[in-house]
Amino acid sequence: MNARSLKIIEHPTRWGEGNIEIQAENTCILCTSSVIDSVPRFLRDSNQAWLTAEYNMLPRATHTRTDRDIQRGKISPRSSEIQRLIGRSLRTSINLKAFSGHTIIIDCDVLQADGSTRCHAINGGQIALIRGIQKLQHDNKIKSDPVNFLVGAISAGIVKGKPFIDLDYNQDHKAEVDLNIIMNEHGDLIEIQGTAEKKPFSRTTLNELLDLAWPEIERIIQQQKAVLQTPYPYNH
Amino acid sequence: MNARSLKIIEHPTRWGEGNIEIQAENTCILCTSSVIDSVPRFLRDSNQAWLTAEYNMLPRATHTRTDRDIQRGKISPRSSEIQRLIGRSLRTSINLKAFSGHTIIIDCDVLQADGSTRCHAINGGQIALIRGIQKLQHDNKIKSDPVNFLVGAISAGIVKGKPFIDLDYNQDHKAEVDLNIIMNEHGDLIEIQGTAEKKPFSRTTLNELLDLAWPEIERIIQQQKAVLQTPYPYNH
Amino acid sequence: MNARSLKIIEHPTRWGEGNIEIQAENTCILCTSSVIDSVPRFLRDSNQAWLTAEYNMLPRATHTRTDRDIQRGKISPRSSEIQRLIGRSLRTSINLKAFSGHTIIIDCDVLQADGSTRCHAINGGQIALIRGIQKLQHDNKIKSDPVNFLVGAISAGIVKGKPFIDLDYNQDHKAEVDLNIIMNEHGDLIEIQGTAEKKPFSRTTLNELLDLAWPEIERIIQQQKAVLQTPYPYNH
Amino acid sequence: MNARSLKIIEHPTRWGEGNIEIQAENTCILCTSSVIDSVPRFLRDSNQAWLTAEYNMLPRATHTRTDRDIQRGKISPRSSEIQRLIGRSLRTSINLKAFSGHTIIIDCDVLQADGSTRCHAINGGQIALIRGIQKLQHDNKIKSDPVNFLVGAISAGIVKGKPFIDLDYNQDHKAEVDLNIIMNEHGDLIEIQGTAEKKPFSRTTLNELLDLAWPEIERIIQQQKAVLQTPYPYNH
Amino acid sequence: MNARSLKIIEHPTRWGEGNIEIQAENTCILCTSSVIDSVPRFLRDSNQAWLTAEYNMLPRATHTRTDRDIQRGKISPRSSEIQRLIGRSLRTSINLKAFSGHTIIIDCDVLQADGSTRCHAINGGQIALIRGIQKLQHDNKIKSDPVNFLVGAISAGIVKGKPFIDLDYNQDHKAEVDLNIIMNEHGDLIEIQGTAEKKPFSRTTLNELLDLAWPEIERIIQQQKAVLQTPYPYNH
Amino acid sequence: MNARSLKIIEHPTRWGEGNIEIQAENTCILCTSSVIDSVPRFLRDSNQAWLTAEYNMLPRATHTRTDRDIQRGKISPRSSEIQRLIGRSLRTSINLKAFSGHTIIIDCDVLQADGSTRCHAINGGQIALIRGIQKLQHDNKIKSDPVNFLVGAISAGIVKGKPFIDLDYNQDHKAEVDLNIIMNEHGDLIEIQGTAEKKPFSRTTLNELLDLAWPEIERIIQQQKAVLQTPYPYNH
Repeated sequence: MNARSLKIIEHPTRWGEGNIEIQAENTCILCTSSVIDSVPRFLRDSNQAWLTAEYNMLPRATHTRTDRDIQRGKISPRSSEIQRLIGRSLRTSINLKAFSGHTIIIDCDVLQADGSTRCHAINGGQIALIRGIQKLQHDNKIKSDPVNFLVGAISAGIVKGKPFIDLDYNQDHKAEVDLNIIMNEHGDLIEIQGTAEKKPFSRTTLNELLDLAWPEIERIIQQQKAVLQTPYPYNH
Repeated sequence: MNARSLKIIEHPTRWGEGNIEIQAENTCILCTSSVIDSVPRFLRDSNQAWLTAEYNMLPRATHTRTDRDIQRGKISPRSSEIQRLIGRSLRTSINLKAFSGHTIIIDCDVLQADGSTRCHAINGGQIALIRGIQKLQHDNKIKSDPVNFLVGAISAGIVKGKPFIDLDYNQDHKAEVDLNIIMNEHGDLIEIQGTAEKKPFSRTTLNELLDLAWPEIERIIQQQKAVLQTPYPYNH
Repeated sequence: MNARSLKIIEHPTRWGEGNIEIQAENTCILCTSSVIDSVPRFLRDSNQAWLTAEYNMLPRATHTRTDRDIQRGKISPRSSEIQRLIGRSLRTSINLKAFSGHTIIIDCDVLQADGSTRCHAINGGQIALIRGIQKLQHDNKIKSDPVNFLVGAISAGIVKGKPFIDLDYNQDHKAEVDLNIIMNEHGDLIEIQGTAEKKPFSRTTLNELLDLAWPEIERIIQQQKAVLQTPYPYNH
Repeated sequence: MNARSLKIIEHPTRWGEGNIEIQAENTCILCTSSVIDSVPRFLRDSNQAWLTAEYNMLPRATHTRTDRDIQRGKISPRSSEIQRLIGRSLRTSINLKAFSGHTIIIDCDVLQADGSTRCHAINGGQIALIRGIQKLQHDNKIKSDPVNFLVGAISAGIVKGKPFIDLDYNQDHKAEVDLNIIMNEHGDLIEIQGTAEKKPFSRTTLNELLDLAWPEIERIIQQQKAVLQTPYPYNH
Repeated sequence: MNARSLKIIEHPTRWGEGNIEIQAENTCILCTSSVIDSVPRFLRDSNQAWLTAEYNMLPRATHTRTDRDIQRGKISPRSSEIQRLIGRSLRTSINLKAFSGHTIIIDCDVLQADGSTRCHAINGGQIALIRGIQKLQHDNKIKSDPVNFLVGAISAGIVKGKPFIDLDYNQDHKAEVDLNIIMNEHGDLIEIQGTAEKKPFSRTTLNELLDLAWPEIERIIQQQKAVLQTPYPYNH
Repeated sequence: MNARSLKIIEHPTRWGEGNIEIQAENTCILCTSSVIDSVPRFLRDSNQAWLTAEYNMLPRATHTRTDRDIQRGKISPRSSEIQRLIGRSLRTSINLKAFSGHTIIIDCDVLQADGSTRCHAINGGQIALIRGIQKLQHDNKIKSDPVNFLVGAISAGIVKGKPFIDLDYNQDHKAEVDLNIIMNEHGDLIEIQGTAEKKPFSRTTLNELLDLAWPEIERIIQQQKAVLQTPYPYNH
């Protein structure tokens, strides 16, 4: 009933200002950050930075093959919702007004999917984001520290009447209730999304799941911090 | 700090098996249900019905004009997320396996937008859905009663540190926390989506907002039931 | 054999510089004008204003549901033709060179369709357009009067060998000849589009239909003028 | 002030059941018909044939280059309107219910454009269509004669206050009124589309243009008939 | 076993700075060049010209009708590959840095297809390109001579074990090996694309086909030069 | 001047009938095969299997970030060309008529790109393909052995006048000539694609590059065979 232990590997590939592979057993996601020296058109006259995220699953990340979005010519609603969630959550962790004129793109590519990919994309993306910020600091493009706090995410759910966290595909598939919880290092909520997949749920159940989630998120944020102890730039 | 009072008008337009205009002051949405005697391809060999929802805002539902999705050739991620939420929530209210071979489409067209459109689309869509079911019963296409319960939805948020429900555009725009709550008539949760728009929020705040939400949702469901007392088919 | 009487309601919704609901019995269209302080790229270096129109039917404006254009990712040829006709007709009614740098968008959303929607979209759009012009005058953005004349539109057709005007869906469906006539207040033609839907038609028939159309268009333009007697800005 | 004389070349290219190049001085269009032994999905359970047309201009058919529609990923509204007009007009000339299960596609590719391309596409397309019908008869796939009549088309307009027919690009560009007239061999109207490009026009003007058009259309239909005297199949 | 003799007609249509119809028996392609006084965005700050090519087949260029790319809303991979090949090959023939700020577009529209269309599009496009350059020189927009050399193209293949060049559709269809060879007037290779359609091929076969190709390409380039002897501007 | 040594890892991820990570120093590609028990529509009435390939580069596989194809809504011409090349080459290696009713999809996702990705996608895809065939044999869905031979691929080029093979990004970027060579285990050519990127090249150069390529391809095919010695199914 505990979350799966996380394995976090820095710079599994060569490029990417931040560059993280995060594994929760059979879920494995490559999270990179790319720092770009411009902002999108809608922010051109503002005085702030921008952060956006993209989420994608390789076609054979899943047990049976999933068609690529490009086959239908448009991003799937599911991918679109997830990448908006990742971007929204990570944007709270930094102060975009503390530095301007830069865009950081967080790319989350799921190499292998076994449940909770959106949560672990946030967990890995947070580290990649901080590395991107450190790159800007290292290049003297930001002076101040724009980091508000770190955020962590965990899924929770009710399977056959019992609470579970960090659901794998088998649990997720059968879950009556599906809840994604994103919190910051102070234990405050950043985002909560709960769905009665098969059965309405009581507020008691909601609280029970939130009680289970926080210690795991706290642990994940500790692990993020441990990885970030290694000073930047790291050597390849 | 109370929710706006709802005005629900049945059959404002001539067609639609169900046909509802729902108004919460300056928010005004046309919700229709259409009953189709077939199911989408992915359900062709199953033994169940289907329910889907579409959400759209007229370009001048808003204070300044919003471009139509068709101008860019694809549905906006926001509309896509909302219509998925509406469909998911309303699907819980009926048993799709109790009748097969039919699709019910709930169309929610926002004529005027002043906050909380997704919640009131659910509130109006629920009535339109029941009317669609009644149409099928009236035509002897379903014998049993597939209705599990009614669902209602309300938005809640923190504006300048204070809790509000049923946010209008001005409140929504300034909200630090934005929460959409969908519950059924028994007070159980169907969906909860909370976002720290400007500031992380504590579980105490979450509970405070949930406390405010339930009486309003209960009142909305009472109002839905009052409308549904009129027997079907109603005369035009 | 007369045209249906028109009901014109100003500001049925809150926003839109002009804002008209026009009803011809079961045909009901919301026409708004939006004034934008820029012109499209192709006019950027010219010295004139721009006027464009968009036409859309709600999915359940019709007896059986019509799929939204966005489902196929592109505007239907029918909608495209109609909105080009509306824009072309209304552009003749004003002098775009008399004021520059502004775009007026006329949105025509059919809430309920029972024939002749393109004609009544023009009839309602004309009023919304004048209100948009008055808004610009009220804001001192145009000094001169750019209005050339008002235009009105009516459909006509031959059903079972007999001439009809302002065809409803049942008549339109059976019509052997379908004619849309747009004229200005001086009785001159702005646009004429006639199609032998089921049977070629003689020039005698064409003249008979034109004879029927003008008195009705004249009456419609009188009704537009009556609505426009209320000075701008009207109170909500 | 007369129409340009038409040059009609049969089988300029090798393939196409019908295969016509039609020239009106600098306007030159390749019109082919293709006979396909199936009907579109929406006619699958009906008992009739189908006829559709496609219209396209080569990028350098015009004085300055026009981008291909494919560059924007969708057919231009102008091409779409024109090909719908061609299809609608030619469909009146045959009885689709007299033979079933076949589709005839009329392709009109403008090699060189100097005004009136839509009218001459109809004039050439009519011949290609009859050749397609003859191919079906020759293959014993239709027994009866499904041809109702031949149709011809001519443009007319007012340029600097004077009436013109078969407008070339220079005339069309300056025309105050632009009228396209499609009639059958009996002098009845099939389609009429008139637009006040720069100036509203009176019914007197409309009649004057119609008076000019009919003799030219009659002449064109005579020319079509002369070409069709050559029995099918012609030798390459 | 020889290449088909080429027929090259200059200015078959009225417009196009260069304007060539090239025929190899039943293969017939219209090649035009258009000179535009700007460069694409990606070259805006560079100091060079641009050359691009577009390739398209008319739907009835082939024995049975081929759907237009626009029907699917995107260019077919085959057309895309071919137009990239044409552009790449012709770009080698001129020095884009010798003149800046202009774009030359080579449009290759296949009117009739009987094999080897990509090669003959290059052969005709080369002449159209030089005419475009001459237009720029004639207008005093380029002083120097940017032409490096002329290029010619020929297809080759193995059919039933025997080598062929300039394959027509019947040969191409049955070819075990399909090779497209583009060379310049000095006998150097510009592009070579060989595919084992049905059977792997030895280097001996490759050399045999290259031996056959060069004399034909040399002959084609002689023919290009002969056409280009006529001084520019030619009279229409 | 030798090819980079290849590292081939089997089953780096959990799913995929075949599942290969292939590395040539900093080029790293994930190649999977997916076996599907149906064929595409165009083969439905044939008696054969189908094989297709998809190629994609992760956005941060490259030194600076590359936008995903989905951002523009269509596959890039480069990706499209490459995946067609991979599919075409691998199809020669098996006899699709030896087994029917199945589709094998080869997915090649470039995790890290440092030149020659299309060649190594073929090298890795070949192994994944054989594993897919073995899966079908293991499930008793094919009895016979449909493998014709193995194919290998290598890039070659001229950089500063000197021949190189297996070009990395830096070499590729500066190459005057760029050649991709695909051969089978018998030393016969499957595909050859050569482009004069900066300078036309002689047949002598072509032969010199082909001389260099074959021993490397032979070595690669030996390495493929060594990997395939491990019997299927392998344990995870």
